[in-house]
Amino acid sequence: MTSIPDTETFPHSTGLALKTAEAHSEEKDLVLWGAWFCPFVQRVWIALEEKSIPYRYHEVNPYKKEESFLRVNPLGLVPAIEIKQEATLWESLVLLEYLEDAYPHASNPNAQPLLPEDAIGRAKARIWVDHISKKVIPAFYTFLQAQEKKEQDEGREKLLQGLEKLVKAMAPSTEGPYFFGSQFTTVDIALVPWVLRFATVMKKYRNFELPTEGGENNVWSRFKTWEDAAVNRQSVKNTSSDDEKYFHVYKRYAENTTQSEVAKATRAGKALP
Amino acid sequence: MTSIPDTETFPHSTGLALKTAEAHSEEKDLVLWGAWFCPFVQRVWIALEEKSIPYRYHEVNPYKKEESFLRVNPLGLVPAIEIKQEATLWESLVLLEYLEDAYPHASNPNAQPLLPEDAIGRAKARIWVDHISKKVIPAFYTFLQAQEKKEQDEGREKLLQGLEKLVKAMAPSTEGPYFFGSQFTTVDIALVPWVLRFATVMKKYRNFELPTEGGENNVWSRFKTWEDAAVNRQSVKNTSSDDEKYFHVYKRYAENTTQSEVAKATRAGKALP
Repeated sequence: MTSIPDTETFPHSTGLALKTAEAHSEEKDLVLWGAWFCPFVQRVWIALEEKSIPYRYHEVNPYKKEESFLRVNPLGLVPAIEIKQEATLWESLVLLEYLEDAYPHASNPNAQPLLPEDAIGRAKARIWVDHISKKVIPAFYTFLQAQEKKEQDEGREKLLQGLEKLVKAMAPSTEGPYFFGSQFTTVDIALVPWVLRFATVMKKYRNFELPTEGGENNVWSRFKTWEDAAVNRQSVKNTSSDDEKYFHVYKRYAENTTQSEVAKATRAGKALP
Repeated sequence: MTSIPDTETFPHSTGLALKTAEAHSEEKDLVLWGAWFCPFVQRVWIALEEKSIPYRYHEVNPYKKEESFLRVNPLGLVPAIEIKQEATLWESLVLLEYLEDAYPHASNPNAQPLLPEDAIGRAKARIWVDHISKKVIPAFYTFLQAQEKKEQDEGREKLLQGLEKLVKAMAPSTEGPYFFGSQFTTVDIALVPWVLRFATVMKKYRNFELPTEGGENNVWSRFKTWEDAAVNRQSVKNTSSDDEKYFHVYKRYAENTTQSEVAKATRAGKALP
């Protein structure tokens, strides 16, 4: 077996994420198979925290396709959820829906509802999660992995366009900081792990800064309000590791040498897995 | 404005789909903006029929980006749903979830539930709908639009692999013909419009035939059981037009000259919109 660099990624979370992982190291019926550096995992981890669900956090290096891991997710991707004696599930957005279905607010007042209550609101949440998946996140990786200035500029432009469109659909900040105003939902969760990497990874490797003003309808000021609230949300902080550790992982994206499935798809100009 | 060939597509449904459209031509609070030839539209149309929802079917040519249509879906794509005085929604899979949320079986016994009742079953449905979206449908278009034999063969192979994986996850046919056995769900709905085009369009333009036997665990025999039930489901037949009309539309895919958004993305090797 050839050793590939990604298998030597730092082996566990640090900072507040490590404290959270340690607090969730005991056996439970629900196990999150995660990798501390993976933004798709962080989505699900945030949701577990928001909904006060009893869970065990199990760190795995998804680059090593170990048999025990492939039994949980045959695709070999994180996040995956193992429900003891019952099922294994995967795909971050499917898992957010699953947690919402399986742990409804109605049966536990400590379980934050992560979708609006009404059917139209739920549909709007899903439309904008889809927008984030198809427009914002692919642009993030294109921008970060591109080695030529022209392609980087195109990636940056697409990322800003995708964000701008999303922000224009947000509730006015007078109703609250989040996409829907006061309720923190899957739309916020779907986006925040990548935004956490703007000020750290993207600043360092691509000198990226968001516009602070301008844009139609003060879109960047609205985004700043969202960002301040989202990155400081307790569930988000509690699932974040130390900045320096992310730098190390994302250096391989910035140099376009990582062999992650997301990176390979981006390199090939294909849809993300 | 330049006339592009796609704007001259036959203007309305035919056959049983026309009868269904005519029976749903009166004003209602829910309006489906659809195009008779579009498989993404057919998904939503099937769901409306399954759930006995009062709706109006409104035919639109999505290639003509008319202002009235862009007001309903700013992306200019079908299907879209207009809920009078309330909202406009789009994205076929979001719309299937919306109809399930807004018209629950619990409040109307005539409304077929299109997702399993339990959270794990619902998650499994979403995992396989995601597989269909990411693996099966892109392969369908690659295969159909490819002009070189080598690329066509690759497309065919990927399409068969995607189907095989899906079939292996199906309930045994002793429990019923559909993905989950006896219940007809979003997994079946997400796939059937493309399978309808196998025996017609794909046979004609790519000489495509599914294996009738072989495959691990008799996978093709299981698929045949599924196909026979799915394509003969009343809601599927009632939303299908005459074969010859599809030939006309898909000729432009087979010659790779159509300017549909799906075709353009396929041509560029990008994710479908």
